[in-house]
Parts: sequence; C-alpha cells; structure tokens
Amino acid sequence: MLQGNALVGQSGGPTAAINATLAGVIRGVLEQAGQGPIETIYGMRNGVEGLFRGDYLNLTDCMDDAKLEQLIHTPAAALGSCRKKLPDSPDDPAYDTVFAEFRRLNIRYFFYIGGNDSMDSVVKLTAAAKCRDYDLRVIGVPKTIDNDLVETDHTPGFGSAAKYVAVSIEEIIRDCSVYTVPAVTIVEIMGRDSGWLTAASALPGAVFGEGPDLIYLPERVFRIEQFLSDVRAALAKHPNVVIAVSEGIKDENGEYLGGGKTPGGAQDVFAHRYLAGTAKYLETVVKQEIGCKVRAVELNLPQRCAAHIASETDLEESVFIGASAVRAAVDGVCGCMMTFIRTEGDAYRVVAGTVPAERVANQIKVVPDSMITPDGTGITDEGIAYLLPLIQGESMPAFVSGLPLQFKF
Amino acid sequence: MLQGNALVGQSGGPTAAINATLAGVIRGVLEQAGQGPIETIYGMRNGVEGLFRGDYLNLTDCMDDAKLEQLIHTPAAALGSCRKKLPDSPDDPAYDTVFAEFRRLNIRYFFYIGGNDSMDSVVKLTAAAKCRDYDLRVIGVPKTIDNDLVETDHTPGFGSAAKYVAVSIEEIIRDCSVYTVPAVTIVEIMGRDSGWLTAASALPGAVFGEGPDLIYLPERVFRIEQFLSDVRAALAKHPNVVIAVSEGIKDENGEYLGGGKTPGGAQDVFAHRYLAGTAKYLETVVKQEIGCKVRAVELNLPQRCAAHIASETDLEESVFIGASAVRAAVDGVCGCMMTFIRTEGDAYRVVAGTVPAERVANQIKVVPDSMITPDGTGITDEGIAYLLPLIQGESMPAFVSGLPLQFKF
Repeated sequence: MLQGNALVGQSGGPTAAINATLAGVIRGVLEQAGQGPIETIYGMRNGVEGLFRGDYLNLTDCMDDAKLEQLIHTPAAALGSCRKKLPDSPDDPAYDTVFAEFRRLNIRYFFYIGGNDSMDSVVKLTAAAKCRDYDLRVIGVPKTIDNDLVETDHTPGFGSAAKYVAVSIEEIIRDCSVYTVPAVTIVEIMGRDSGWLTAASALPGAVFGEGPDLIYLPERVFRIEQFLSDVRAALAKHPNVVIAVSEGIKDENGEYLGGGKTPGGAQDVFAHRYLAGTAKYLETVVKQEIGCKVRAVELNLPQRCAAHIASETDLEESVFIGASAVRAAVDGVCGCMMTFIRTEGDAYRVVAGTVPAERVANQIKVVPDSMITPDGTGITDEGIAYLLPLIQGESMPAFVSGLPLQFKF
Repeated sequence: MLQGNALVGQSGGPTAAINATLAGVIRGVLEQAGQGPIETIYGMRNGVEGLFRGDYLNLTDCMDDAKLEQLIHTPAAALGSCRKKLPDSPDDPAYDTVFAEFRRLNIRYFFYIGGNDSMDSVVKLTAAAKCRDYDLRVIGVPKTIDNDLVETDHTPGFGSAAKYVAVSIEEIIRDCSVYTVPAVTIVEIMGRDSGWLTAASALPGAVFGEGPDLIYLPERVFRIEQFLSDVRAALAKHPNVVIAVSEGIKDENGEYLGGGKTPGGAQDVFAHRYLAGTAKYLETVVKQEIGCKVRAVELNLPQRCAAHIASETDLEESVFIGASAVRAAVDGVCGCMMTFIRTEGDAYRVVAGTVPAERVANQIKVVPDSMITPDGTGITDEGIAYLLPLIQGESMPAFVSGLPLQFKF
C-alpha cells in the first residue's frame, strides 16, 4: 500500500453537486483512516492555482459529519475553483515547485474534481509525476452540469441542473398559460456544445403531458426559416407557445446564433466562445417576423447553483463517486477518471467505474440521434428513459431564518 | 343576509400565491355552505374577460380538499388571467350583458384577486351595480409580487417572490465566490416602480453576513458615475462583486436605464412601460468603463412562478385572506380591498382588514426612506425587520417523478 497524504481540488464552473463530491472524497479518506494508507487529506484553494501557490487547508482536522452534511447541500466550489491549465510539457520547470511541495507534505493521492478541462490536468499531472519518478495516484472525479463527458453514463451535477431546468420549465409553462393573447416565450438553457440540459426541458411533457412546444438542441443545425415555420404552426394550435433553446444552437455555417449581437467573440482561457443572448436574439426575430408578444427568459446561473432544488439522486451519487475515487486510488488506480456505469435491468442503478483520463480529456459527448425526434424539435422515449431517473428525489438544505444554510471554509 | 351565489376571478400578472388565495376564497365559501348565505361559487375564466363572454366554472362541484391543497401549491392563475380594463362609465351598455348574466346565475358576491389595476375594476363594478340598483358585494383580494399596493402591510405573493430572490441571490453569491479573477455580477430583479423585491436581496446579508455588495432601488435616482465609483470601491475590497438592481431604476431625467437599448417603448394596456435589459445595459457599461469580467443575470419569470420555493408564511396568509374576504362579504362589506394589518409586538402576526378599493386603485407604495441606507445602496435594519418575517418557512408542492404536481382545471 502506498502510504501518504491526499490532496483534493475543484476546478471549472460551479455546480450544485461539486461540493457533494468533495464531501464524498473527504468521507472516503476519513472512513479508511487508521486502517488504510491515507493519513491526512488537504484541500487546495482554487484548484491547481492553489497547487502553484501552496495554498492548502487541512480537511482531516476541520471537517466532521455535521459540516460534511452542510457541504453536500452547498452549491459552487467550497475550495474555490480556477480555469488554469497545467503546462503541456511534463518536464516544465513550473512543476518543480509543485513536486517539492508534494514531497514536503508527502502527498501521494491527488483527487481533481472537474470537467473535461480538468481531466486534461489529470493526464498532465500523471505524466509530470512519472517524469520525476514520483509515486502519485492521480484521479479525476467528473462534474459538469453539461453532461458532456464521454465514457461515463452521466456526470455528477447534471441531475440537479436538469431538475432545475425541468421544474423551471414546468413553472414557466404554468405562468405563460394564463393569458388568451398569443404569446411566445423562449427559454434559453445552458449547454455550450451539447444539448443535454436543454433536453431535460422535455421531462414535464413526458411526466404530465405538458412540455415545451419546441425544443432546439445544438446537435441539429438551426435554421431560422424552419424555426419561424415551427413557431407559426405551434401558435395555430394554442396561444401560449413555450420554446426551449440551447445557448449553443448554431446556424448552417456553424456560427452561434446572434453572435454578432452579443458581447461575444470574447474567449475564455480554454478557447470556448463566450455565449449570451440566443433567446434575446430569437425574441427580436419572432417580434419582427410574426409580430406577437414575445419574451426571452435566460435561466442563467441558477441552473448550476440552485441547490435548494437539487436532485437527491444526483447528490447521493456525487458523494458516492467521491468516496469511490478514494477506494480506487487506494487500490492502485492512477491517471483515471471515475465513471458511472448504468446497470442493465428495469430499475435504475449505477456502479462506479474508471477510465484512463486521456480518453475523456477535451472530448465532447453530444445527445445521440436516437434521443432526438426526427423533426429535431423534441426528445424521444429513449431520451426520456435516460434522463428521468437522474432528477428523482428532492434534497433540500437546512434552512435558517427562511434561507438555505451554506457551508464555508 | 344577502342570499345568492359567488363569482371569483384572477387578474394581472401571475404569482406563486394567487392560487392559494383562490383556494382560500373557495374554502371560505365551502365552509359557510349550509349555514351561510352563499350556495354556489363560480370561477370566471380569464378574469373580467370571462365575465363578458360568460365563461364560468362551477367550483363548488369540482373542488375538494385534495384539489384545494394542490391548487395552493400551483403557481400562476388556475382560472386564467387578463389585463382587461372595465368601462369607465357605470352606465356603459357593455355592463348590461354582465348584469343579465349575474341575474341569471343570481351572483351576489364577487371576489376579484389582483393588483392595483384589479382594484380599479372593483371600484367600477361596484359603481355599475349601484347604478343598476343590483345588490352585489364586490371585494378585491390583493396579490402582486411587487408589494406596491397601499393600505396593506404587504401583498400576498410578495413573500414567495422575495424568498425566491433572497435564496437565488444567496446561491449566486456562492457561485460567484469561486474564482480569484475580479468579476462583477449584476442581478436584475422585477419591480416596475417600487424596489420591494430588490430590497429582499439584502436578506442573506442580514441573516448570514454575506449579501450583495450594492443594491439599487427605483426609489433613488440612478447615476452612472456614482454607480461606477461604487463598483470600483467594491472591487477594491474583494474580487467577486455581486450587485442587485431593480428593473425599474431611472436616471436623473426619470428615464428607465438603457431604455433605448431594449425592445422598450412598447406599452401594455395599462400604459406601463415595457422593461427589459437593465442589467444587460449595466454589463456593457461596466465592461467598457472598468474592463473586468461582467455578467448580467435577469431573474425573470421564475421570480413570480417558482412555487417550489414558496414562502410558507405567504401561502398560509394567502389562503387566510381569501377566506377572510368571504367572511367580510357575508358581513356586508362591499367595494373594498382586503388588507393585512401587522399587529404590534415582537412576534410577527397579521390580521385581516378592509379598505375602500378607491383608496388603493392606481396608487403605488414605494420603499420608504427609513428602509434605505443613506448612501442609497443598502437596506436598513428597519427594512430587514419588515421583510424577514415574510419569507419564513418552506412550503413545497407534492412531487411526482421528480417534478412538482400542479393543479389544472
């Protein structure tokens, strides 16, 4: 057994469940304490930023069951996050300070909770350790509301975001149903390159028979003329048309919609195009071309931080996969990302698996054709069967004076 | 006692609690059935639109306790709503069909749930009845997320919207706290002419010591130069600045901010200016003048329809005031709006009162000076003491397959 201490960090965009995974990793370490090889777990502040500036917290000392329970129900990243990329070359001298610090603290287990950019960091840190002959078990634990990581059935954090989207769409449909005047409401949902979250807007329709009239995913080319024809047909059926669109829908030329009308063009450090205002753009188009009442609603940040309506299934699985990462690392797994494997059979159940991180890094998993209806504006039964188990159960935080109690380090 | 039947309708913008008030009115009628003067309660579809087209439902026949319980937790207006104004003149012939219908159904009690525009309808219908010597008890039951009705301590529906705003702000602040890069997040909150809902964003700060850095209400003139200076000062203190702004903030000339940049200028039937994009406008200003990362978040429709995070206090009071309206009408009150009176003493408690509807119609209650800090960017202890009791308690709907069960007629 590789004796030593552990370091955990969080990276990328916040979710309602990334702290649940952190709690799982901490719990996994605390559970093996005394019998297992890991003595102390440290948390680095702001992901690999904290790694480079040596900014750590001793989590073994400062966490107990009550605090872990609060942490599970707190959105965002309690340790802070970053979008920093690690140096490409494993022998880059920038790594030297990091490994000096690892030696000083005897760090032998490294857990990095994040999306596909973070899996890139897992690959690079594994290589940098090998290059220095430093025995380090590096494990990536997935998270992203986008659900766009390959090799895993779904990602921790997605279920809670999907539940927020489905519940909000259901409430917005109710809200929009009250007037008799024809009106179009366009709801913009997060998802840069994949339509998983937007697909979740179909769930109220599947459960209660009343969902968005039209759903547009980035997996299909978005054609304005077809869109206007779809909207006119929907308005002919009933006055209150609700449409779900992914922020990432693109036109025939692969250009984001309304890109010219947004603060767009700005690029983040991982070269993802900055997106805003898809629904606002479509609002203008519908107003001009159809002339009815139109409203754009961007669900925005609450999609990833509305912990008050988290999916119980998501939070439980997020804790589970964090603890599973510790067991995998102790068992000798290295350079891998944890995965969910959905078991065969009628009842929904997942088990934890592992996959080499390089098979995940910088890949995108999109919604398959079999989950999108042939007309491209709806989700098939297969899609619903995939999505519905992920939003089951309500897991509320404790409330103090009418507001959610949040954990802070 | 005035023997006859009752008619109830809903009007104006939806809220998470307007159906709770409808349930209260129905319950009030069902409770007196057999002993009291009201035999049957009808619901009109789409407020006074249904009145003119004779579109009624028999609620006595179709509602039971289980359905009322579902109705309480369903957002928006189950009977449908409208923004129709009644004719100004009490002897307008348009009223003749209405009163013929009233005679046919022996309607003697009329309950109208709505905002200040609806109280205008209460005044007019009362006058039209008098003019025709028709004995009709007309009662307005307030609702509005804006809390801008005079003569009542607060309005049903406000507490739930305020809770949604406070919880979302708390979650957004957590979300924004994860990065070390300076960033400004501007959250736009509903409120056409009053800042009550925006003021509720101060609650997480009061309860947990962490709230928005700056809060701007329409009660104060908004000066861009002062705003930029406030933002710079906030950024000097910490990197993640969160700002709450009312959609209704106005400049020195009384013009809505960024009015020229929005689809604005459109006017609804009550001549309220169409508002959109205040935060988006400020995002552009901060990006240009300060140059840091900026994000605009418009809380939008979920503010008024997020029944899943309704205030228990609000829902209970909304049912109570609906039932109180029935008791008041039976006792002979007419042409009045129901009010909440906050009792003296340390513990929060409200009782129901009544006030002539003409004292409420077309008036606006703004946030008083004593609730706004002298610098105009915060809420005083008096404001917090007023707001905090209104968001107490969580009242969740029943969930089916992970989604809220909603009532539909």
